[in-house]
Amino acid sequence: MTYEFDRDTGIQAFGDGRYGAVLAPGWVVGGGVNGGYLLAIIGKAIAAELAERFPTKGHVDPFSVSSHFLSASTPGPAYVVTEVVRSGGRFSTVSATLVQDVEGEPVPRIAATGTYGDLDRAHDPASDAAAAALGLALPAPLLPPLEQCVESRDAPPEVKAIAPLLDRFGTRFDPATAMWALGQPSKQGVIQGWFKLADDRPLDPIALLMVLDALPPTTFDLGMPGWAPTLELTAHVRAKPAPGWAIVRHATRTMAGGLFEEDCEVWDSTGTLVAQSRQLALQPR
Amino acid sequence: MTYEFDRDTGIQAFGDGRYGAVLAPGWVVGGGVNGGYLLAIIGKAIAAELAERFPTKGHVDPFSVSSHFLSASTPGPAYVVTEVVRSGGRFSTVSATLVQDVEGEPVPRIAATGTYGDLDRAHDPASDAAAAALGLALPAPLLPPLEQCVESRDAPPEVKAIAPLLDRFGTRFDPATAMWALGQPSKQGVIQGWFKLADDRPLDPIALLMVLDALPPTTFDLGMPGWAPTLELTAHVRAKPAPGWAIVRHATRTMAGGLFEEDCEVWDSTGTLVAQSRQLALQPR
Repeated sequence: MTYEFDRDTGIQAFGDGRYGAVLAPGWVVGGGVNGGYLLAIIGKAIAAELAERFPTKGHVDPFSVSSHFLSASTPGPAYVVTEVVRSGGRFSTVSATLVQDVEGEPVPRIAATGTYGDLDRAHDPASDAAAAALGLALPAPLLPPLEQCVESRDAPPEVKAIAPLLDRFGTRFDPATAMWALGQPSKQGVIQGWFKLADDRPLDPIALLMVLDALPPTTFDLGMPGWAPTLELTAHVRAKPAPGWAIVRHATRTMAGGLFEEDCEVWDSTGTLVAQSRQLALQPR
Repeated sequence: MTYEFDRDTGIQAFGDGRYGAVLAPGWVVGGGVNGGYLLAIIGKAIAAELAERFPTKGHVDPFSVSSHFLSASTPGPAYVVTEVVRSGGRFSTVSATLVQDVEGEPVPRIAATGTYGDLDRAHDPASDAAAAALGLALPAPLLPPLEQCVESRDAPPEVKAIAPLLDRFGTRFDPATAMWALGQPSKQGVIQGWFKLADDRPLDPIALLMVLDALPPTTFDLGMPGWAPTLELTAHVRAKPAPGWAIVRHATRTMAGGLFEEDCEVWDSTGTLVAQSRQLALQPR
């Protein structure tokens, strides 16, 4: 059996640093294709290019991927143009642009840069112990048990018609941060819950790039429904995730000039912070 | 009179999207040239390229600049290679690489991508009022009055010898977050203070890119002196700063796998959040 995520993020080497992909309709949400899903495809292309160019370095894991969103993607063919910027001993940096041809013209969708290395080699129990002693092992939020949480797959059919993305996930929202679905947003700017993929595909560093943009925008919880296009999103993967339910938390602290910041953190089933991101997005009109 | 910042960030158009600069020795700190100063040079090159290519669009202000640090810069000649990725109605995105020639070979120092627009046009009193009502106008920390704060220019001569950068700033540190200078770090991972340039050059959006990386690393306050090289830094400029003293706050919430996250916020003299950044940096050894 092939998991949905692996099937839908498959890439094909075209040579010269170019990788083809087919954006699957199952990851559509509202007016476009989910940004986290697109980041995972870009993340795979960067890993493939580094494996091809520097097979012995083992720079297989994303440590930091920053991405500027240029235009909305559509389901169908796409390709990633990669270029190695620098390859060092511990890290390699690659620029990668996701492109779709529209009426014969290449239209860039996302301009990304990724710094990759080896998360296993970076893992350092002494550093983690020092971090814990200093209170720098950011704890996961306390969530109600799974059975008291709200399943995203239980959304009404009219919502799922415009957001087939919901069927990819097994998200269980903390009810306190999901009341916007009933027209009663908490106005705290927080959305959090338990996370897994619908078909139980285990998470890994590339999949974490997708998880960081999997939940609805926090503006839903601020009483601002509608599309909130991302301008920029930077993801940091901090550790390899253990199997099992992850916890995801999105929060907004600042809104100004028609833009808002949205921070995301992901913890694995052992409570370890495994990924974080910050995005700057356009406030819904 | 020419301010130090303007003199030292001067760029010269070489054509074909290339801009020359001379990295000034006054911005050296420890083993390299200050990253914020380099970001300001990159930021100026992006603005110049957009003004040259699209003179009527007015995409003069950085909204988001993400940068991957590849190798340590040295004082002397450098150049920025820019390439417009997309130019739209509200925003334009440009990739920009800072390069220095070493023994005749180009060595990339920083790979950046900037999304620019017009902060005056983005400014929206209705959005700001909504943000304030929602508690999303992040307040500045309360600092002791200027005269009770610690001047960075009062650092001992042996410190200033390896950090001439200190003479560029009029920073006054909150004493509670400056005890690391006396060997008594608070271990809170916070460094904050009042900020201005030493020669009172007013801040503007490009200068804010520099301010976001102007303070010592928070690891000083965690009892880890030493160089903390930046892997990635993303800056968001949220508003044009008003004249007068700014407030800058750096805080670290997470450390893992030999890396730590450092978040920075800058408020202007009216208390408005004008810029923020997050960087992922290597823990000092």
